[in-house]
Amino acid sequence: MPKTFRCHLFWCGHEREGDEKPSCGKRGSPDIGKQLKQEMRDRGLRNEVAVTKSGCIGQCTVGPAMIVYPEGVWYKVENMEDAREILDCHLEKGEVVERLVIRD
Amino acid sequence: MPKTFRCHLFWCGHEREGDEKPSCGKRGSPDIGKQLKQEMRDRGLRNEVAVTKSGCIGQCTVGPAMIVYPEGVWYKVENMEDAREILDCHLEKGEVVERLVIRD
Repeated sequence: MPKTFRCHLFWCGHEREGDEKPSCGKRGSPDIGKQLKQEMRDRGLRNEVAVTKSGCIGQCTVGPAMIVYPEGVWYKVENMEDAREILDCHLEKGEVVERLVIRD
Repeated sequence: MPKTFRCHLFWCGHEREGDEKPSCGKRGSPDIGKQLKQEMRDRGLRNEVAVTKSGCIGQCTVGPAMIVYPEGVWYKVENMEDAREILDCHLEKGEVVERLVIRD
């Protein structure tokens, strides 16, 4: 088995063509995702936490969306302030950031 | 919270430029991933199981690689026969397909 990560965060980078339906990739997710990965590395977490781009995860009207496994928590992450809160709480300490959780 | 999936499979679709290092995307993962998603839907599993493309998950010399969460099982999936075994066993019944697990 490859590295066993304590958490694996996927950020949706799907960029939908045309303007009919929104998409995470057009709402800034690539900048947030890349910066989040760099901050994760800067904190020395690269052996514990993985940060990976994903295709569409079906939150097009809600995103920028991210999911953290193994907990399966779905987040709306609009900026680096939100992303840092997920890093500080969920990825560092395993605490879910309730205010950013996507609910029905 | 959005749909709660019993399993979420990510297939690496990363396509590396140049020929110096291999990548899952150049080893057939897009065809396998798309067909796997269609078969999952054909089996009526779309409310239980998610199949999503991902960026690089670091298995470039081993892949085509996939991960199934929440279990965090990493698979090498070379063809649709392998993919169907993961569908039959892991995604349908929650049983890990030991012969396809990526080990150190």
